[in-house]
Amino acid sequence: MLLTTLCYIENEDSYLMLHRIKKKKDVNQDKWIGVGGKFESGESPEECLLREVKEETGLLLTSYRLRGILTFLSEGWEGEYIFLYTADAYEGEIGECAEGTLKWVKKEEISSLNLWEGDKLFFGLLNENAPFFSLKLRYAGDELMEAVLDGRRIVGKN
Amino acid sequence: MLLTTLCYIENEDSYLMLHRIKKKKDVNQDKWIGVGGKFESGESPEECLLREVKEETGLLLTSYRLRGILTFLSEGWEGEYIFLYTADAYEGEIGECAEGTLKWVKKEEISSLNLWEGDKLFFGLLNENAPFFSLKLRYAGDELMEAVLDGRRIVGKN
Repeated sequence: MLLTTLCYIENEDSYLMLHRIKKKKDVNQDKWIGVGGKFESGESPEECLLREVKEETGLLLTSYRLRGILTFLSEGWEGEYIFLYTADAYEGEIGECAEGTLKWVKKEEISSLNLWEGDKLFFGLLNENAPFFSLKLRYAGDELMEAVLDGRRIVGKN
Repeated sequence: MLLTTLCYIENEDSYLMLHRIKKKKDVNQDKWIGVGGKFESGESPEECLLREVKEETGLLLTSYRLRGILTFLSEGWEGEYIFLYTADAYEGEIGECAEGTLKWVKKEEISSLNLWEGDKLFFGLLNENAPFFSLKLRYAGDELMEAVLDGRRIVGKN
Protein backbone atom coordinates (compact mmCIF):
# COMPACT_ATOMS: atom_id res chain seq x y z
CA MET A 1 0.00 0.00 0.00
CA LEU A 2 1.22 3.50 -0.89
CA LEU A 3 0.86 6.55 1.30
CA THR A 4 -0.09 9.75 -0.45
CA THR A 5 -1.50 13.21 0.13
CA LEU A 6 -4.28 14.75 -1.95
CA CYS A 7 -5.15 18.42 -1.64
CA TYR A 8 -7.96 20.59 -2.94
CA ILE A 9 -6.85 24.21 -2.80
CA GLU A 10 -9.78 26.61 -2.50
CA ASN A 11 -10.05 30.09 -3.93
CA GLU A 12 -13.41 31.76 -3.44
CA ASP A 13 -15.89 29.36 -5.03
CA SER A 14 -13.36 27.19 -6.92
CA TYR A 15 -10.98 24.30 -6.35
CA LEU A 16 -7.63 23.98 -8.10
CA MET A 17 -8.02 20.81 -10.18
CA LEU A 18 -5.36 18.80 -11.98
CA HIS A 19 -6.24 17.08 -15.25
CA ARG A 20 -3.93 14.04 -15.34
CA ILE A 21 -2.95 13.82 -18.96
CA LYS A 22 0.86 13.93 -18.90
CA LYS A 23 1.97 10.70 -17.22
CA LYS A 24 2.10 7.23 -18.73
CA LYS A 25 0.81 4.25 -16.75
CA ASP A 26 -1.11 6.51 -14.37
CA VAL A 27 -3.94 5.04 -12.30
CA ASN A 28 -5.48 8.52 -12.62
CA GLN A 29 -5.04 8.79 -16.43
CA ASP A 30 -7.48 11.40 -17.87
CA LYS A 31 -9.11 11.94 -14.47
CA TRP A 32 -9.42 15.30 -12.73
CA ILE A 33 -8.07 15.15 -9.20
CA GLY A 34 -6.37 17.42 -6.67
CA VAL A 35 -2.64 17.92 -6.27
CA GLY A 36 -0.36 15.89 -4.01
CA GLY A 37 1.66 12.72 -4.19
CA LYS A 38 3.64 10.01 -2.47
CA PHE A 39 5.25 10.26 0.96
CA GLU A 40 9.01 10.17 1.12
CA SER A 41 10.37 8.04 3.94
CA GLY A 42 10.05 9.69 7.35
CA GLU A 43 7.96 12.62 6.16
CA SER A 44 4.98 13.59 8.27
CA PRO A 45 1.73 13.98 6.33
CA GLU A 46 2.01 17.77 6.29
CA GLU A 47 5.65 17.69 5.18
CA CYS A 48 4.61 15.53 2.21
CA LEU A 49 1.68 17.84 1.52
CA LEU A 50 3.75 21.03 1.47
CA ARG A 51 6.53 19.50 -0.67
CA GLU A 52 4.18 17.96 -3.23
CA VAL A 53 2.00 21.04 -3.55
CA LYS A 54 5.10 23.19 -4.06
CA GLU A 55 6.48 20.78 -6.68
CA GLU A 56 3.23 20.50 -8.62
CA THR A 57 1.87 24.05 -8.40
CA GLY A 58 4.70 26.35 -7.26
CA LEU A 59 2.50 27.41 -4.30
CA LEU A 60 3.47 27.38 -0.63
CA LEU A 61 0.41 26.52 1.45
CA THR A 62 -0.02 28.71 4.52
CA SER A 63 -3.37 27.35 5.74
CA TYR A 64 -4.56 23.78 5.31
CA ARG A 65 -6.61 21.16 7.10
CA LEU A 66 -6.66 17.36 7.08
CA ARG A 67 -10.25 16.44 6.27
CA GLY A 68 -10.16 12.68 6.09
CA ILE A 69 -8.37 9.47 5.22
CA LEU A 70 -9.17 7.53 2.06
CA THR A 71 -8.43 3.83 1.69
CA PHE A 72 -8.29 3.49 -2.10
CA LEU A 73 -8.30 0.01 -3.62
CA SER A 74 -8.29 -0.57 -7.37
CA GLU A 75 -7.73 -3.94 -9.06
CA GLY A 76 -4.34 -4.18 -10.76
CA TRP A 77 -2.88 -1.16 -8.97
CA GLU A 78 -1.20 -0.85 -5.62
CA GLY A 79 -3.67 0.38 -3.00
CA GLU A 80 -3.27 3.78 -1.38
CA TYR A 81 -3.91 5.41 1.94
CA ILE A 82 -4.63 8.98 0.98
CA PHE A 83 -4.46 11.87 3.43
CA LEU A 84 -7.11 14.24 2.10
CA TYR A 85 -6.59 17.97 2.69
CA THR A 86 -8.17 21.23 1.76
CA ALA A 87 -6.19 24.46 1.80
CA ASP A 88 -7.49 28.01 1.80
CA ALA A 89 -4.36 30.18 1.80
CA TYR A 90 -1.03 30.13 -0.01
CA GLU A 91 1.83 32.24 -1.28
CA GLY A 92 3.31 32.34 -4.78
CA GLU A 93 2.13 32.00 -8.33
CA ILE A 94 0.88 28.90 -10.07
CA GLY A 95 3.42 27.39 -12.46
CA GLU A 96 3.55 24.48 -14.87
CA CYS A 97 2.76 21.00 -13.54
CA ALA A 98 4.61 17.95 -14.89
CA GLU A 99 1.70 15.63 -14.08
CA GLY A 100 -1.08 17.36 -15.94
CA THR A 101 -2.93 20.63 -16.49
CA LEU A 102 -3.97 22.83 -13.56
CA LYS A 103 -7.25 24.70 -13.68
CA TRP A 104 -9.51 26.54 -11.26
CA VAL A 105 -12.94 24.93 -11.47
CA LYS A 106 -16.06 26.24 -9.75
CA LYS A 107 -17.25 23.88 -7.02
CA GLU A 108 -20.68 23.60 -8.63
CA GLU A 109 -19.05 22.42 -11.88
CA ILE A 110 -16.71 19.82 -10.34
CA SER A 111 -19.19 16.98 -10.70
CA SER A 112 -19.34 17.45 -14.48
CA LEU A 113 -15.61 16.62 -14.80
CA ASN A 114 -14.24 13.13 -15.40
CA LEU A 115 -13.83 12.19 -11.72
CA TRP A 116 -13.45 8.95 -9.87
CA GLU A 117 -17.02 8.03 -8.91
CA GLY A 118 -16.12 7.90 -5.21
CA ASP A 119 -14.63 11.39 -5.29
CA LYS A 120 -18.16 12.76 -5.52
CA LEU A 121 -18.79 11.19 -2.11
CA PHE A 122 -15.96 13.06 -0.46
CA PHE A 123 -16.69 16.31 -2.30
CA GLY A 124 -20.14 16.08 -0.71
CA LEU A 125 -18.53 15.66 2.72
CA LEU A 126 -16.09 18.53 2.12
CA ASN A 127 -18.81 20.87 0.91
CA GLU A 128 -21.05 20.19 3.91
CA ASN A 129 -18.01 20.70 6.18
CA ALA A 130 -18.32 17.19 7.62
CA PRO A 131 -16.13 16.32 10.60
CA PHE A 132 -13.01 14.22 10.00
CA PHE A 133 -13.92 11.05 8.13
CA SER A 134 -12.46 7.73 6.95
CA LEU A 135 -13.73 6.62 3.55
CA LYS A 136 -12.81 3.28 2.00
CA LEU A 137 -13.33 3.04 -1.77
CA ARG A 138 -12.95 -0.20 -3.72
CA TYR A 139 -12.99 -0.16 -7.52
CA ALA A 140 -13.06 -2.69 -10.32
CA GLY A 141 -11.62 -0.67 -13.18
CA ASP A 142 -13.57 2.58 -13.13
CA GLU A 143 -16.56 1.13 -11.35
CA LEU A 144 -17.01 1.84 -7.65
CA MET A 145 -17.80 -1.54 -6.11
CA GLU A 146 -17.89 -0.56 -2.47
CA ALA A 147 -17.73 2.53 -0.31
CA VAL A 148 -17.51 2.38 3.47
CA LEU A 149 -17.77 5.62 5.44
CA ASP A 150 -16.52 5.49 9.04
CA GLY A 151 -17.22 1.75 9.12
CA ARG A 152 -20.70 2.02 7.53
CA ARG A 153 -21.17 0.59 4.04
CA ILE A 154 -22.80 3.27 1.87
CA VAL A 155 -22.23 1.72 -1.59
CA GLY A 156 -22.06 -2.01 -2.27
CA LYS A 157 -22.27 -3.85 -5.59
CA ASN A 158 -20.79 -7.31 -5.30
CA MET B 1 7.49 2.81 7.07
CA LEU B 2 4.89 0.72 8.87
CA LEU B 3 1.25 1.67 9.32
CA THR B 4 -0.25 0.94 12.70
CA THR B 5 -3.15 1.81 14.97
CA LEU B 6 -2.77 2.68 18.64
CA CYS B 7 -5.79 2.91 20.91
CA TYR B 8 -6.35 4.14 24.45
CA ILE B 9 -9.60 2.67 25.74
CA GLU B 10 -11.20 4.81 28.43
CA ASN B 11 -13.23 3.64 31.40
CA GLU B 12 -14.24 6.37 33.82
CA ASP B 13 -10.94 7.96 34.88
CA SER B 14 -8.62 5.24 33.52
CA TYR B 15 -6.99 4.09 30.28
CA LEU B 16 -6.40 0.45 29.42
CA MET B 17 -2.62 0.18 29.24
CA LEU B 18 -0.47 -2.62 27.87
CA HIS B 19 2.86 -3.38 29.51
CA ARG B 20 4.97 -4.80 26.66
CA ILE B 21 6.94 -7.55 28.35
CA LYS B 22 6.11 -10.65 26.30
CA LYS B 23 7.64 -10.05 22.86
CA LYS B 24 11.29 -10.39 21.89
CA LYS B 25 12.90 -7.72 19.67
CA ASP B 26 10.11 -5.26 20.41
CA VAL B 27 10.72 -1.55 19.82
CA ASN B 28 8.32 -1.07 22.76
CA GLN B 29 10.07 -3.56 25.11
CA ASP B 30 9.16 -2.80 28.77
CA LYS B 31 7.19 0.30 27.77
CA TRP B 32 3.54 0.92 28.64
CA ILE B 33 1.51 1.75 25.56
CA GLY B 34 -2.03 1.34 24.27
CA VAL B 35 -3.35 -1.58 22.25
CA GLY B 36 -3.33 -1.86 18.46
CA GLY B 37 -0.99 -3.07 15.75
CA LYS B 38 -0.05 -3.28 12.10
CA PHE B 39 -2.41 -2.77 9.18
CA GLU B 40 -3.11 -5.76 7.00
CA SER B 41 -3.15 -4.97 3.27
CA GLY B 42 -6.28 -3.16 2.18
CA GLU B 43 -7.65 -2.58 5.67
CA SER B 44 -9.04 0.84 6.45
CA PRO B 45 -7.71 2.39 9.66
CA GLU B 46 -10.87 1.48 11.61
CA GLU B 47 -10.85 -2.10 10.30
CA CYS B 48 -7.30 -2.49 11.58
CA LEU B 49 -8.29 -0.87 14.87
CA LEU B 50 -11.26 -3.15 15.51
CA ARG B 51 -9.36 -6.31 14.55
CA GLU B 52 -6.28 -5.52 16.61
CA VAL B 53 -8.23 -4.45 19.69
CA LYS B 54 -10.30 -7.66 19.51
CA GLU B 55 -7.16 -9.79 19.16
CA GLU B 56 -5.28 -8.14 21.99
CA THR B 57 -8.06 -7.53 24.51
CA GLY B 58 -11.08 -9.61 23.50
CA LEU B 59 -13.14 -6.39 23.37
CA LEU B 60 -15.28 -5.18 20.48
CA LEU B 61 -15.14 -1.37 20.32
CA THR B 62 -18.52 0.27 19.80
CA SER B 63 -17.44 3.92 20.08
CA TYR B 64 -14.05 5.27 19.06
CA ARG B 65 -12.50 8.39 17.61
CA LEU B 66 -9.36 9.10 15.57
CA ARG B 67 -7.53 11.76 17.54
CA GLY B 68 -4.34 12.23 15.56
CA ILE B 69 -1.56 10.86 13.40
CA LEU B 70 1.88 10.15 14.80
CA THR B 71 4.98 9.98 12.62
CA PHE B 72 7.28 7.87 14.79
CA LEU B 73 10.98 7.66 13.88
CA SER B 74 13.47 5.69 15.95
CA GLU B 75 17.04 4.89 14.91
CA GLY B 76 17.55 1.24 14.04
CA TRP B 77 13.81 0.49 13.72
CA GLU B 78 11.44 0.90 10.84
CA GLY B 79 9.48 4.14 11.19
CA GLU B 80 5.73 4.09 11.78
CA TYR B 81 2.71 6.13 10.87
CA ILE B 82 0.44 5.58 13.84
CA PHE B 83 -3.29 6.26 13.72
CA LEU B 84 -4.02 7.29 17.32
CA TYR B 85 -7.50 6.53 18.66
CA THR B 86 -9.37 6.76 21.90
CA ALA B 87 -12.42 4.58 22.56
CA ASP B 88 -15.09 5.02 25.21
CA ALA B 89 -17.45 2.08 24.69
CA TYR B 90 -17.02 -1.64 24.01
CA GLU B 91 -18.60 -5.04 24.41
CA GLY B 92 -17.09 -8.19 25.90
CA GLU B 93 -14.68 -9.07 28.66
CA ILE B 94 -10.95 -8.45 28.75
CA GLY B 95 -8.91 -11.59 28.07
CA GLU B 96 -5.22 -12.48 27.98
CA CYS B 97 -2.95 -10.52 25.66
CA ALA B 98 -0.06 -12.25 23.88
CA GLU B 99 1.95 -9.01 23.67
CA GLY B 100 2.05 -8.03 27.33
CA THR B 101 0.01 -7.40 30.45
CA LEU B 102 -3.18 -5.33 30.33
CA LYS B 103 -4.04 -3.03 33.19
CA TRP B 104 -6.46 -0.17 33.86
CA VAL B 105 -4.38 2.81 34.96
CA LYS B 106 -5.81 6.07 36.29
CA LYS B 107 -5.12 8.95 33.90
CA GLU B 108 -3.37 10.92 36.64
CA GLU B 109 -0.95 8.02 37.19
CA ILE B 110 -0.10 7.40 33.53
CA SER B 111 2.89 9.74 33.54
CA SER B 112 4.58 7.71 36.32
CA LEU B 113 4.72 4.63 34.04
CA ASN B 114 7.66 3.78 31.78
CA LEU B 115 6.37 5.62 28.69
CA TRP B 116 7.95 6.88 25.52
CA GLU B 117 8.84 10.48 26.33
CA GLY B 118 6.78 11.80 23.43
CA ASP B 119 3.69 9.91 24.57
CA LYS B 120 3.36 12.45 27.39
CA LEU B 121 2.91 15.09 24.68
CA PHE B 122 -0.05 13.35 23.10
CA PHE B 123 -1.59 12.38 26.45
CA GLY B 124 -1.63 16.10 27.18
CA LEU B 125 -3.41 16.73 23.88
CA LEU B 126 -5.90 13.90 24.49
CA ASN B 127 -6.67 15.06 28.02
CA GLU B 128 -7.32 18.64 26.94
CA ASN B 129 -9.53 17.31 24.12
CA ALA B 130 -7.37 18.98 21.46
CA PRO B 131 -8.66 18.94 17.88
CA PHE B 132 -7.19 16.43 15.42
CA PHE B 133 -3.40 16.73 15.40
CA SER B 134 -0.32 15.48 13.55
CA LEU B 135 2.66 14.86 15.82
CA LYS B 136 6.08 13.83 14.50
CA LEU B 137 8.41 12.24 17.06
CA ARG B 138 12.04 11.44 16.35
CA TYR B 139 14.06 9.38 18.83
CA ALA B 140 17.69 8.36 19.27
CA GLY B 141 17.31 5.29 21.45
CA ASP B 142 14.96 6.32 24.23
CA GLU B 143 15.75 9.99 23.90
CA LEU B 144 13.25 12.27 22.17
CA MET B 145 15.35 14.36 19.77
CA GLU B 146 12.58 16.23 18.03
CA ALA B 147 8.83 16.74 18.24
CA VAL B 148 6.88 18.64 15.60
CA LEU B 149 3.20 19.36 16.26
CA ASP B 150 1.15 20.33 13.21
CA GLY B 151 4.29 21.60 11.50
CA ARG B 152 5.57 23.53 14.55
CA ARG B 153 8.73 22.27 16.27
CA ILE B 154 7.98 21.95 20.00
CA VAL B 155 11.02 19.89 21.06
CA GLY B 156 14.41 20.05 19.37
CA LYS B 157 17.75 18.87 20.67
CA ASN B 158 20.29 18.88 17.89
